[in-house]
Amino acid sequence: MNEKTYPFAPCAPVGKPVDLSHHFNAAVRSRTPNPLKSLYKYFQVPGMSNIAGGMPHASTFPFDHFSAQIAPPDRLINSEFHGIAPHTVRSFFSRTAKPKTDHIKVPKSDADHATDAKIDIETALQYGRGTGLPVLVDFLREFTFEHMLQGELAYDEKQADIILTCGNTDAIAKVIGAIGTRGDTMLVEEFCYTPAVQAVAPYGIKSQAVKMDQFGMVTEGKGGLRDVLENWDPKRGRRPHFMYTVPVGHNPTGATLKDDRRREIYDLCEKFDIIIIEDSPYWHLQFSDASHNLPSKNDAKYPFLAALEKSFLTIDKSGRVIRLDTFSKTIAPGCRLGWITTQKKIVDGVLIAATESSTQQPSGFVQAMVSELLCRSWGMDGWVQWLENLHGVYEERMRLMATTLSAGREVLTITSNASEDFEKVDKTAVYEFKIPDGGMFVWVHVLITEHPAYKEYLARGNTKSEMMEKLWDWVALTQKSLPSPGSIFAGDQDGVSRACEHFRLCFAAIEITEVEDATARWVKGVHRFWLLEAEEIERIGADASTVRKSKRLVGAGGGWGGFHGGKGRLDVQFDHLHI
Amino acid sequence: MNEKTYPFAPCAPVGKPVDLSHHFNAAVRSRTPNPLKSLYKYFQVPGMSNIAGGMPHASTFPFDHFSAQIAPPDRLINSEFHGIAPHTVRSFFSRTAKPKTDHIKVPKSDADHATDAKIDIETALQYGRGTGLPVLVDFLREFTFEHMLQGELAYDEKQADIILTCGNTDAIAKVIGAIGTRGDTMLVEEFCYTPAVQAVAPYGIKSQAVKMDQFGMVTEGKGGLRDVLENWDPKRGRRPHFMYTVPVGHNPTGATLKDDRRREIYDLCEKFDIIIIEDSPYWHLQFSDASHNLPSKNDAKYPFLAALEKSFLTIDKSGRVIRLDTFSKTIAPGCRLGWITTQKKIVDGVLIAATESSTQQPSGFVQAMVSELLCRSWGMDGWVQWLENLHGVYEERMRLMATTLSAGREVLTITSNASEDFEKVDKTAVYEFKIPDGGMFVWVHVLITEHPAYKEYLARGNTKSEMMEKLWDWVALTQKSLPSPGSIFAGDQDGVSRACEHFRLCFAAIEITEVEDATARWVKGVHRFWLLEAEEIERIGADASTVRKSKRLVGAGGGWGGFHGGKGRLDVQFDHLHI
Repeated sequence: MNEKTYPFAPCAPVGKPVDLSHHFNAAVRSRTPNPLKSLYKYFQVPGMSNIAGGMPHASTFPFDHFSAQIAPPDRLINSEFHGIAPHTVRSFFSRTAKPKTDHIKVPKSDADHATDAKIDIETALQYGRGTGLPVLVDFLREFTFEHMLQGELAYDEKQADIILTCGNTDAIAKVIGAIGTRGDTMLVEEFCYTPAVQAVAPYGIKSQAVKMDQFGMVTEGKGGLRDVLENWDPKRGRRPHFMYTVPVGHNPTGATLKDDRRREIYDLCEKFDIIIIEDSPYWHLQFSDASHNLPSKNDAKYPFLAALEKSFLTIDKSGRVIRLDTFSKTIAPGCRLGWITTQKKIVDGVLIAATESSTQQPSGFVQAMVSELLCRSWGMDGWVQWLENLHGVYEERMRLMATTLSAGREVLTITSNASEDFEKVDKTAVYEFKIPDGGMFVWVHVLITEHPAYKEYLARGNTKSEMMEKLWDWVALTQKSLPSPGSIFAGDQDGVSRACEHFRLCFAAIEITEVEDATARWVKGVHRFWLLEAEEIERIGADASTVRKSKRLVGAGGGWGGFHGGKGRLDVQFDHLHI
Repeated sequence: MNEKTYPFAPCAPVGKPVDLSHHFNAAVRSRTPNPLKSLYKYFQVPGMSNIAGGMPHASTFPFDHFSAQIAPPDRLINSEFHGIAPHTVRSFFSRTAKPKTDHIKVPKSDADHATDAKIDIETALQYGRGTGLPVLVDFLREFTFEHMLQGELAYDEKQADIILTCGNTDAIAKVIGAIGTRGDTMLVEEFCYTPAVQAVAPYGIKSQAVKMDQFGMVTEGKGGLRDVLENWDPKRGRRPHFMYTVPVGHNPTGATLKDDRRREIYDLCEKFDIIIIEDSPYWHLQFSDASHNLPSKNDAKYPFLAALEKSFLTIDKSGRVIRLDTFSKTIAPGCRLGWITTQKKIVDGVLIAATESSTQQPSGFVQAMVSELLCRSWGMDGWVQWLENLHGVYEERMRLMATTLSAGREVLTITSNASEDFEKVDKTAVYEFKIPDGGMFVWVHVLITEHPAYKEYLARGNTKSEMMEKLWDWVALTQKSLPSPGSIFAGDQDGVSRACEHFRLCFAAIEITEVEDATARWVKGVHRFWLLEAEEIERIGADASTVRKSKRLVGAGGGWGGFHGGKGRLDVQFDHLHI
């Protein structure tokens, strides 16, 4: 490799992350030290009457204690996932009428534990630390460093820290809000979790997509990370100095970075001095071989975790990775609770101030309840068992959807020609997809340019994007199956044309009993759409009921008979969409 | 009045707020419409299989139900506050061993209520609306418009709306983050809640203090609001176009705006087209006569609320007021839950987007529990009773502190003169204060420039500010009583010299049994400080134990005997200070 080293890429001493303060924006650099710090020196003096803090008295909190009925960690499946054929795996709820339960209680005052281990109303409902309830922070520190990273943080663990957040959207706002400056460009995947792009765009931060393959961002070739960085046109502003990426169970594609690629990306980020914002809500949902073949490294305490693809933090010798984790996909989205792991200087110097001047701390209600669940009831063993079983629940759903999609990839069309007395049979692929390596989605590429009426439809003055919108409307109207249009996942404006050829199908949110059916109806809708003529396509939505259904359709492959459009139902009112 | 009308101050049609979009910054103006909105059209179609949203399935939430033991609304005092002498008022906890309790439960699935009235795990722990759980939003809408504002919103109620926040610090970040632009100047009180100033300063937003009197901001005279605005020097940048104010139970001064002043301030804001950010965490804690003299308007459903000073919203004919309310001082700070009330266009066009791109929604744990408490258990009657009784609890504390402070305003010093055989007795006021009209604080002005050693101390090269710091150290070290130094409440840099002559004493956070004692120790410390010489003052902190205690001190006035420094204790570990 004939690469010059850029002068601004700092060299890391072993075990110590480098100073990355030059990445942070004017707002961070102009923050003044908290003037209250000077008061702290007297806080721990025994007998000190604190009439300084503006806090209400805990006796006026109307909550005496919280309690909850919870799942034991083995509820979702009471056996090992490994070795069980996916189709036989059922969530606990679908197998028994009465799920196993445990109970937790958050008392008014936790006299049994030292200050930093307390989980009680008096502590959780009072103003608290910006970093979070100490007992929960300690649990997450152990989980992150010892089990998620398997003790392989690339720099001295004492130089790293975690801070709680109100979920990853909050984390993204805080992190990019501290790094980004008007005129900056953020690196993202070609198809990406666009809410992150939309959240920062109003602040003048553009996005630059990096080409993807089935594993995630590519480093080499046209549009790959190296190309984007080496050939950056300074007229477009400062070369990107930070990247936002979802490296595992990627949303929307399901791609999961493997070791080699992860290292190639990191090395380029090192060379070009780029901060990596690693958003990993689906880390525990890896469906690749790795999560089924137990590793040779048999000394791991939790083989399930040890087998998963690792975080960028394990190769982050410079401390340029800011990792975002969330409870949204492991406990519940409504927690609005997650955590950031990065070098301690960034936590102390940037993230605590960002937290104290906005959210202050996640709600004490969720901090206390989740602490009680994890730190007292489940413990680390229970938490890891829960993650493993949850993984099984979603893998089953994924396989149900993927099997149905596989069976329906091709459509058979039979064209009668009465005058010549023969039937012409065509077998045409209508879409392609890859079984996702992780996450909650299947990313389906519709071969729309192969549609028999594609040229005619465009010749009539329409666009490919409009044709895909018509397909989306058509399936929703006639089959009542509603995926996400791919166009909303374009990493930048240039990518819309490619993104719009896709749909993202989520197997997580609907009832498990509905997964095959909803998928099959979607497939049926696509097949029928393939038989429509340009003029019929134009009329979709305008008056859907009049669309002619006279073409003969032959099901391609079996296994998804029993369409019963309208029988499936919305169990939750999705009046708010989270993508 | 010979005032010209500024062309940019829009004229409000009756009942309809004006368009204030010109106040919002580039980030707000460049937000693009949510691309997902197009999906919503199919969400409510019966039988639609939603495979679009990226949401986990509710059966994987490990919480089956929450429950809590709560206070009934009459716990704090089981009788009317009015007519009871303050000193006889005791919180429930101090009067009986076993407080009265009720119970609430948040079920997994609330089948008994329509979608918008549901309080359950499935709804609260899923992704939800940016505005908040509908049932809680409805309750707060009724509370705000009908009872807080007594139906007197100055424009059509249909043009107003509320949105939940993660508390007022979050609200301040969202609101000022949408209004402020680098180079702007924000109007604040001369002494103010400085975290609001510190939160926005890094974004290049300066503050301009407006002079205060005992009621709050003054409009006339040098340094008053009119002077600041009419004589604004354009070299300092754009004239302020927004104001941050705590108009009731002001932090730190306790001042509460009365009708006339409120209207004068509003009229000036109208004339100069200024947005008013009305932060009112202490609205229910008003200790002025108003809250004890029931109003003549006897038709009010809740006389306690009807008697309180009103919000700016009641005179806000243009819709330029953005009011911030919080549960921090009525339920608990750890809720991280509050709400914003303003014109609907600002909620819909600004605040929902600011929420969806940061916190998304307050935690479902607190939304569900507070909803169950307010909407199901207490109801509006219970909630208002709770507020009234809470008011009684804090008023008692305030009066205990104020009485102790009153008694100790003066120090008697006796100077012996052996050669002339007489004793000279001086009676000197050492501080002054006003009984607060509301809130949680007493703002004490120490007459430091009257200190016998003041001139000598300054002549030795020290500053007034340093002398006040020494006083603060002295009282903490010798009396173990720790108020907030006034300097941290200076609204702008020019105000530090005046602010530093004050201390803010909080009567809310410590045990009620400690209020008199902690205050008396503070008074004793000040008195003893008055007897120190300049050189002794310089040595404070350097070696506190060596400070000479040979001067004779005579207590001024009685009633706070029984000093027992060291007996009071910290019941909560204040390792994080909220001011």
